[in-house]
Amino acid sequence: MDRVIRIGMLGCGTVGGGVATILDREAEDITARTGARIELTRIAVRDVGRDRALPVDDGVFTDDPWSVVEADDVDLVVEVMGGRELAGPLLRRALELGKPVVTANKELVAHEGPELFAAARHAGVDLAYEAAVAGAIPIIKPMKESLAGDRVRRVVGILNGTTNYILTRMTEEGAAYADVLAEAQALGYAEADPTADVGGHDAAAKCAILASLAFDTPVHADDVFTQGIETVTDTDIRVADRLGYVIKLLGIASEVDGRVGVRVHPAFLPKAHPLASVRGSFNAVYVEAAAAGALMFYGRGAGAEPTGSAVVGDVIDVARNLLQTARGAAESQHRAKDLRSIDELRTQYYVLLDVEDSPGVLAEVATTFGDHGVSIAEVWQQGTGDSAQLVLITHRATEAALRATADALAAVPTVRSVASVLRVEAEVFDQ
Amino acid sequence: MDRVIRIGMLGCGTVGGGVATILDREAEDITARTGARIELTRIAVRDVGRDRALPVDDGVFTDDPWSVVEADDVDLVVEVMGGRELAGPLLRRALELGKPVVTANKELVAHEGPELFAAARHAGVDLAYEAAVAGAIPIIKPMKESLAGDRVRRVVGILNGTTNYILTRMTEEGAAYADVLAEAQALGYAEADPTADVGGHDAAAKCAILASLAFDTPVHADDVFTQGIETVTDTDIRVADRLGYVIKLLGIASEVDGRVGVRVHPAFLPKAHPLASVRGSFNAVYVEAAAAGALMFYGRGAGAEPTGSAVVGDVIDVARNLLQTARGAAESQHRAKDLRSIDELRTQYYVLLDVEDSPGVLAEVATTFGDHGVSIAEVWQQGTGDSAQLVLITHRATEAALRATADALAAVPTVRSVASVLRVEAEVFDQ
Repeated sequence: MDRVIRIGMLGCGTVGGGVATILDREAEDITARTGARIELTRIAVRDVGRDRALPVDDGVFTDDPWSVVEADDVDLVVEVMGGRELAGPLLRRALELGKPVVTANKELVAHEGPELFAAARHAGVDLAYEAAVAGAIPIIKPMKESLAGDRVRRVVGILNGTTNYILTRMTEEGAAYADVLAEAQALGYAEADPTADVGGHDAAAKCAILASLAFDTPVHADDVFTQGIETVTDTDIRVADRLGYVIKLLGIASEVDGRVGVRVHPAFLPKAHPLASVRGSFNAVYVEAAAAGALMFYGRGAGAEPTGSAVVGDVIDVARNLLQTARGAAESQHRAKDLRSIDELRTQYYVLLDVEDSPGVLAEVATTFGDHGVSIAEVWQQGTGDSAQLVLITHRATEAALRATADALAAVPTVRSVASVLRVEAEVFDQ
Repeated sequence: MDRVIRIGMLGCGTVGGGVATILDREAEDITARTGARIELTRIAVRDVGRDRALPVDDGVFTDDPWSVVEADDVDLVVEVMGGRELAGPLLRRALELGKPVVTANKELVAHEGPELFAAARHAGVDLAYEAAVAGAIPIIKPMKESLAGDRVRRVVGILNGTTNYILTRMTEEGAAYADVLAEAQALGYAEADPTADVGGHDAAAKCAILASLAFDTPVHADDVFTQGIETVTDTDIRVADRLGYVIKLLGIASEVDGRVGVRVHPAFLPKAHPLASVRGSFNAVYVEAAAAGALMFYGRGAGAEPTGSAVVGDVIDVARNLLQTARGAAESQHRAKDLRSIDELRTQYYVLLDVEDSPGVLAEVATTFGDHGVSIAEVWQQGTGDSAQLVLITHRATEAALRATADALAAVPTVRSVASVLRVEAEVFDQ
């Protein structure tokens, strides 16, 4: 077998190192499965001189990423550099040159997906991005190909490993948010600036990509209603547990009457739900489809080799297509469906109030809920004196009504503060 | 768009009905995603006259399956008739004619896979069988394509919905095996002759297919060590629960030092394992890969529309390839690795003994284990008098040593009977 597919790789950090390692270690099987040898011929890095201890020739490194994209001896471009400013123009140039692209860049796909897909379609080449969402988990390909004959109704994902790790430790050890975060930072599980993770922005980018794919409509990362886990307290987690729930940072995308809603926020999730048992830094994506019913895909969302495995899977796919002058399934021509605002969301809510320990409180609080048309499913008081609290779970209500209720509660004299408000995702799941 | 791919379908029972329904309901999206209309032009059935209430013209039905395979107006053959005697020759003929095939037939693929893959390779056409394993769950395609650059180490699956339903009800309600089975039969969840399900044979066929794919070697259904759930008692389930386990019927395939072991049997599984929370009739496949780490795929393993969704996903894939005169990833040329016998298995065991309620029993039993080199991890006595029992969990031992121990225990005078022996799959899973 003499055929060779030559890879130009942009970036060689954690994921790039994983890609190089896997391509070397599994070279024999990859050749057998592809029908051609896959060779890393050029790699663009910032610092050419650094010792990377990778199984590649030093000669492949360059600090000029444009030369990688333009090179005659590069058939396929792999982008693992991240960011948008440089990666975007580089990938557009690769596609313009008719070179297929494999990228792990969620930020780029979430912000510029439609333009990139159009460029790939125009050039008649593949643009694959399995590694951009949920690391090692095959989710893009199953959604795009295996479910091509089905209709996705809802996607619910645990899409960020750092936050799931923090919430798992808070749940299982009763630890406080700040303590677990500090420890995760010390161990390198969380970034020094953890905003992208704990603020939900990383999950929002991935959720935008999943929503675009599931509902055939362009969803931009900025379209996603996003709340982080910074305000989740150990009290919230204890209350959830007592009621039969766990708290997870969920990315939820659904289509109702042709309109698409996409949101990322911490939520109460019933313990019996398959996503509830996704622990630690694992990710999972739960998909409800009209014909297939409920599906879940679970695995590692990050890391050199897990993400590298997804990149290499894409490379083999795209290489096989190159050899046959074929293309994989393209993104659908998006239909630009309307987006639903978070204000229209109807769900259940958990509300925690710090209150005065006096007989009239519950009546005042209940009246306030009633005044705004929000009905109460469950209520109890915990603590006494200065630490008296009311826990309430509502029936389904709109986000707008709940927000008005919370504002009004803050003005009730016997309510010292609205300590927490979280959504409760307790709809009957298909199981 | 004028292009049409014409489907000839063999069989029109539950799954065939699902396929016809989905192709009709999602026709518009399917056309957009395929780049061609998909048309059901011929359907072979036993009784042409039966009213099927399906969205297809009566004129497409015929009782001659050969005419469907041979017809000039059939580009792609979908086989949902099941069985091997007729389906095998029909599919070989279709491939001989250069027609790609989509099949949901686990029995056929598990027994004749290598021959069929060779015929497809020879003809240069696709043979897709996503629906043959775990119904709606995309598992064949992720294993074959997404993990093409990775190395699978172990596959553990809950591959039969009927047995998982029975075990779940026994676990959650404390019900007895026979009662749950009888009720499942009355409700139509279990067949009148449940042997294929409860005896583990259905799971064994699926496990053989997964093992072949995971380890690039032909594994025949008859190569799979197979034990059913018929002898699992409510006592076993209570003991498992007390020790932190659930009992599941697992299909386990692994490669150790280039040799492949494949087995299906009920086993103790730690409650924290992701497979432990797969309840009711759901299926799931847990995959450990060198680079990707642990992955799990979860969903419905049977039913008209779930299985139909997988068939239609394959049809769209194969149709897209037809339009591009390309092929999907073919099965690897199998390397025919050696198979490991069950005798070589090293795992932990749970042993339940009915014993005499006398002081010397434990010493005698412990001596018997020790004589065979099997060490005990945990032991306790439950019940008194005539219902005295000893529960033992061993450390890892070989199957051969455990079997010799069990035989010797049966001959110990104070042991009235060896009531249960089950494998304990408690190895540290990657999570």
